[in-house]
Amino acid sequence: MDAKQITIVGTGLLGASLGLALKARGFDGRIIGLGRRLVTVERAKAAGAVDVATDQPDRCVPQSDLVVLALPLSGFATVFRQIAPHDHDQLVISDVGSTKLEPVTTARKYLPQPNRFCGAHPMAGKECSGPEAADAELFVGKPCIITPETDTADEAVQMVESLWRTVGMSVLRMPAQEHDRCTALTSHLPHAAAVLLVQVAAQHGGWDVASTGFTSTTRLASSNPPMRTDIMLANRRPLIEAIDAFSHSLTALRKALDHADEAAIRRILETSKTARDNWLNDPNR
Amino acid sequence: MDAKQITIVGTGLLGASLGLALKARGFDGRIIGLGRRLVTVERAKAAGAVDVATDQPDRCVPQSDLVVLALPLSGFATVFRQIAPHDHDQLVISDVGSTKLEPVTTARKYLPQPNRFCGAHPMAGKECSGPEAADAELFVGKPCIITPETDTADEAVQMVESLWRTVGMSVLRMPAQEHDRCTALTSHLPHAAAVLLVQVAAQHGGWDVASTGFTSTTRLASSNPPMRTDIMLANRRPLIEAIDAFSHSLTALRKALDHADEAAIRRILETSKTARDNWLNDPNR
Repeated sequence: MDAKQITIVGTGLLGASLGLALKARGFDGRIIGLGRRLVTVERAKAAGAVDVATDQPDRCVPQSDLVVLALPLSGFATVFRQIAPHDHDQLVISDVGSTKLEPVTTARKYLPQPNRFCGAHPMAGKECSGPEAADAELFVGKPCIITPETDTADEAVQMVESLWRTVGMSVLRMPAQEHDRCTALTSHLPHAAAVLLVQVAAQHGGWDVASTGFTSTTRLASSNPPMRTDIMLANRRPLIEAIDAFSHSLTALRKALDHADEAAIRRILETSKTARDNWLNDPNR
Repeated sequence: MDAKQITIVGTGLLGASLGLALKARGFDGRIIGLGRRLVTVERAKAAGAVDVATDQPDRCVPQSDLVVLALPLSGFATVFRQIAPHDHDQLVISDVGSTKLEPVTTARKYLPQPNRFCGAHPMAGKECSGPEAADAELFVGKPCIITPETDTADEAVQMVESLWRTVGMSVLRMPAQEHDRCTALTSHLPHAAAVLLVQVAAQHGGWDVASTGFTSTTRLASSNPPMRTDIMLANRRPLIEAIDAFSHSLTALRKALDHADEAAIRRILETSKTARDNWLNDPNR
């Protein structure tokens, strides 16, 4: 990892885990934690995730080679505006946001050199939050999607790729729009389904017989509501398309049940089981 | 467990686990494995789950105090018809089916003394199947719902309750209809959602970015299709009602997304998180 100073903006679970992971993997530069609330950044410092805690962008951005935004999507515009006056020719800017079209659109709006921004989505997380839950091994063996634009500077792409490789991730490049369409289908739609399954049980009952199957299917419903609201809003068009595809399938299953169409139901269940098992057993996954 | 001989009909994962669990907990009577395919019952015997393997009901039902059906719901009518000629005044009959109205309805149709049938649903399982996957600890600490009718004989209720207590379960009584309504909401609907999430990904893509959230939300989609088809068909009316409740919630979320209604989305996510977390943390669960 070829940088002398990295600033991590936002030192919750992901930001603090990044700091810990860099140190655990021998990164010998300086790591600055920058946050709106100094008390949170101090907690990350206490956890050993950053070397310096500050709430002043002018104290760290000018000297940094890389700034990584690790805060909710709704805070990006403010941070870009704060960084903008201290931007410089060697600075690369990236993020860890769960959607990728909105960050690059916001970067283009506020950053003087948006071609030095390269978005990233490290696909790692936990239900818990805060710097105390940080984990140096959180990223190991998991995929990180980076979403350079056609005009993104090569140094930016290389630095961001190198950052996530350093902490143990396999890096995959993808256009931001394709990333958002795919995560709507396999991340945001499953989250929405988990939330609504809990809502249905809360409204109609069934908790007494709820078992391990319910627990795992609804696991995502326990994730952070403000963060998830941001993600749903940032990616609402692809998510609505995914919901429509799901509704279409749900209607077909309902019809098969209504007609007691055993062959149709069995075909749906078998096709899904095969698709899931093939994915799980794919050696390239 | 006050019985000298128990016959387990069907020695797949659940049936064989019941045999192993009874032996592990010191049951000193005889356990007979009865099945249509002698080769499967012999595998359960080799795994130490039953003492005797047979495909002849007349060889074991007359001498048994308890017969437990541990096979797919679609096989119940045939087994009840085979048991009927060998029924006797001391015999209690039960099952492990995932729906409870259909088994008791079928019992009333085919058994000479249907008031000696008491349905049970031990809420334990794994994605794998077959006697080799059997596990003596499968039932420990999990709930078992038993669904006696108003006219069910006391001895039958007590024997079935005692059976599942012996293998470590906490037993809960519930009317069959209420059981089926509740499992539709918190078991069969989550299974359907898992299957359809996989179907949507198979049709529209997104596998490259699918991560641990997708894995746990869709876990149930890997369960046995013929068994699950039986369950869906046996419980199709309550499941259709659950699907309609879910569709209603899905439409409301879609509308909130379409209007970018941040407050509404956040309220849905917060209410669900609270309901799920309260359930997980309930000390009486």
